Amino acid sequence: MVLNIKQKSIFNLQSIHQSVSVRFNYEIFFTTNLFDLKNPTLAQVITADGEKKPKKVVAIIDAGLLQYWPDLPQQLAAYTKFYAEILALAVEPMIVPGGEAAKNDRTLPQQIHKLIEAAGLCRHSYLLAIGGGAVLDLVGYAAATAHRGIRLIRIPTTVLAQNDSGIGVKNGINAFGKKNFLGTFAPPYAVINDLNFLTTLSDRDWRSGIAEAVKVALIKDARFFDFIHSSSAALVSRDIEAMQQLIYRCAQLHLEHIANSGDPFEMGSSRPLDFGHWAAHRLEHLTNYNLRHGEAVAIGIALDSTYSFLLGLLDWLEWQRILNTLLALGFTLYVPELAEQYLQLEHPRCLFRGLIEFREHLGGELTLTLLENIGQGIEVHEVDLSLYRQAISLLHDVENRLTLLIES
Amino acid sequence: MVLNIKQKSIFNLQSIHQSVSVRFNYEIFFTTNLFDLKNPTLAQVITADGEKKPKKVVAIIDAGLLQYWPDLPQQLAAYTKFYAEILALAVEPMIVPGGEAAKNDRTLPQQIHKLIEAAGLCRHSYLLAIGGGAVLDLVGYAAATAHRGIRLIRIPTTVLAQNDSGIGVKNGINAFGKKNFLGTFAPPYAVINDLNFLTTLSDRDWRSGIAEAVKVALIKDARFFDFIHSSSAALVSRDIEAMQQLIYRCAQLHLEHIANSGDPFEMGSSRPLDFGHWAAHRLEHLTNYNLRHGEAVAIGIALDSTYSFLLGLLDWLEWQRILNTLLALGFTLYVPELAEQYLQLEHPRCLFRGLIEFREHLGGELTLTLLENIGQGIEVHEVDLSLYRQAISLLHDVENRLTLLIES
Ligand SMILES: NC(=O)c1ccc[n+]([C@@H]2O[C@H](COP(=O)([O-])OP(=O)(O)OC[C@H]3O[C@@H](n4cnc5c(N)ncnc54)[C@H](O)[C@@H]3O)[C@@H](O)[C@H]2O)c1
Ligand SMILES: NC(=O)c1ccc[n+]([C@@H]2O[C@H](COP(=O)([O-])OP(=O)(O)OC[C@H]3O[C@@H](n4cnc5c(N)ncnc54)[C@H](O)[C@@H]3O)[C@@H](O)[C@H]2O)c1
Ligand SMILES: [Zn+2]
Ligand SMILES: [Zn+2]
Repeated sequence: MVLNIKQKSIFNLQSIHQSVSVRFNYEIFFTTNLFDLKNPTLAQVITADGEKKPKKVVAIIDAGLLQYWPDLPQQLAAYTKFYAEILALAVEPMIVPGGEAAKNDRTLPQQIHKLIEAAGLCRHSYLLAIGGGAVLDLVGYAAATAHRGIRLIRIPTTVLAQNDSGIGVKNGINAFGKKNFLGTFAPPYAVINDLNFLTTLSDRDWRSGIAEAVKVALIKDARFFDFIHSSSAALVSRDIEAMQQLIYRCAQLHLEHIANSGDPFEMGSSRPLDFGHWAAHRLEHLTNYNLRHGEAVAIGIALDSTYSFLLGLLDWLEWQRILNTLLALGFTLYVPELAEQYLQLEHPRCLFRGLIEFREHLGGELTLTLLENIGQGIEVHEVDLSLYRQAISLLHDVENRLTLLIES
Repeated sequence: MVLNIKQKSIFNLQSIHQSVSVRFNYEIFFTTNLFDLKNPTLAQVITADGEKKPKKVVAIIDAGLLQYWPDLPQQLAAYTKFYAEILALAVEPMIVPGGEAAKNDRTLPQQIHKLIEAAGLCRHSYLLAIGGGAVLDLVGYAAATAHRGIRLIRIPTTVLAQNDSGIGVKNGINAFGKKNFLGTFAPPYAVINDLNFLTTLSDRDWRSGIAEAVKVALIKDARFFDFIHSSSAALVSRDIEAMQQLIYRCAQLHLEHIANSGDPFEMGSSRPLDFGHWAAHRLEHLTNYNLRHGEAVAIGIALDSTYSFLLGLLDWLEWQRILNTLLALGFTLYVPELAEQYLQLEHPRCLFRGLIEFREHLGGELTLTLLENIGQGIEVHEVDLSLYRQAISLLHDVENRLTLLIES
């Protein structure tokens, strides 16, 4: 008996083509008072899996958040006690450092793995990650790699995490001095955004996340940009309603992009959502992470918008409006790391090395998103460094009020 | 200006449903003399990405393979020199221990990450993993987690890796004494099976991989089972043609299952390809990995087939044929770890604890595949341990020729 297999060449049999399609579904909830016993959101998320209850849950909490919400562990305990038929805390919550420290300590993923093992979590158990984008990135990485993926419920507690980092499909930690060198693509099981958490953010973190909304508005939705522009005073005065609207729409645009881009796991080289980010990542590094991600993104947006204007892609009035809006939101558009003496590629602190790192991280051909109009991005594959130097010098002058912008 | 967002309840806005679909395409090649300069397979795989050349490549080689193929690094160097316009070795190949040792050393993924970083690999560069299933699992894990996924070309060099582990979508390493505790789902970029490598396998490794073919034939393809049955003598005498046929069809069935199961990343609890595997994993552990994976799978198949027979699912004649075929292939169907004194759940070395671990690793409800017919699996969610004890005692008698099987 012989099976029927085709010979193709002297070396090869007929190859087999494999095509695997995977669908991930998850829900992003917008709530307040998440752990109020009368708020069923979390319990419902877990109920909906249709599996035998109660489910094991392990919570990991951002230490920086805990400082402002010291009752969180007790509230969580009371909540799980109230919904004991649905979910059970397998162990005490683990507290991890907040901010970039969460992503810089290589032992943290291992500690989380150990906890997962000790608690006997399986692929159908739940990890609750409560905190800023950095903590969510860390816990996401640990969750994705234990048992090839423990279900992760993200509870983002910063603006940036609620409207961008916490709702997407990526995680990561830093290694070898490189941002997100380690990480995976791993959609969450669910995301629960609780607006209340935002009330305790520092002004810097409150503002920082707004940069991502400006970014996505600029490349995707002119109307949303108008909203941000006209709400800038409200946002600056910490109007929670305005913030809720901003987060919702920003999340929606990010989610639509991920679902419809055709490349959610970024196998190609195109990354429109990274508008303004090549410079941002580099500036975060150059400032030793003294700049918040969103603060760096605001500068990156200003820079790439200015470059788009100088290239003749974006018209003057729109360019002015963009810078004006960023300034009205309270962003700084220039930092000393952009000073002229650094702007030669040979200089180890040169901003433009960020272009190389950006290409290396994405892989393939260099692909930058610029602006044609407010609401309309365009991709380019080449850069003119002397024009970029000019753009930086313009930003310097704007920031120092040497160039005045028109009111719009 | 206000955006239009719906309030759903006192706590919640309208949630956003996200649905992300990701498609992975890869090709499995069947070749011989992979690094013969006249064999273009590897160069073609890399050419086909349509990106700027030459591409950076880093190779990682199984030390146990290298022992038998000491010229491999030189051949690879000559090959890349010949195809220098297409691919370039970024650094010298890294040699890693072969076999389970590759998956037990937690520093190895970090060493590979370091190499990736030092070589400046990006997401569009290539990692070549050359070796047995264990080395592929290790390298796959490291590749999947660097830059959120470096392209991985797997070059499996054992029967098991060519027909099962190397062609699928999983990777993993061991941690906390648990098999594959860490890992991800990450399809390869391509797989190149070179038949020649198999000629240097030990008889045990040659045979071991055949167990996976028996497994998939039993649950999916009665005709393929007939082929294995009628080829058992040829396979035992190391007929390479028969092996090629076996590997090709086995790979095809595994790939079809992964593509068409509807759950390639195993988010549910069903795992038909793990027929016979709950006992296999446990026996590997109990024997300190003295049993090869395939050897343990053969016992697991014998056990679950016998249990299926005792349950009244599988008829007597088919049961006899299965055991006969396994014996004809040279598999042992019983090991001392199955002895009666261990078969109480309280005993730390009890086989049945494997059922608990199996459920924990898969998550959710216990789901075992049994056999209704040769070529036809069936899922059950309950087990009768006393019937399993009876099945084990039958295997003991068969192995010791206390029970004779009919010739078929
Ligand atoms: N995965 C992705 O797709 C993605 C996308 C963008 C950014 N990121 C990552 O997100 C991280 C930045 O996240 P971030 O902006 O949320 O900041 P963050 O996580 O660094 O948190 C900032 C600070 O706020 C504290 N904090 C958190 N919640 C608080 C609250 N409610 N009240 C008071 N303090 C609180 C934290 O402890 C921390 O000290 C970066 O590491 C960035 O790389 C990831
Ligand atoms: N990822 C998956 O989907 C999946 C599926 C099944 C099994 N696995 C894993 O695969 C591993 C077993 O793989 P395996 O059976 O290939 O064995 P192996 O990788 O353990 O290799 C067995 C031995 O053969 C040596 N070797 C490799 N190629 C050789 C060659 N051509 N000639 C001579 N010696 C050679 C190795 O150095 C090793 O000593 C296990 O860790 C198992 O968990 C993974
Ligand atoms: Zn960002
Ligand atoms: Zn197997």
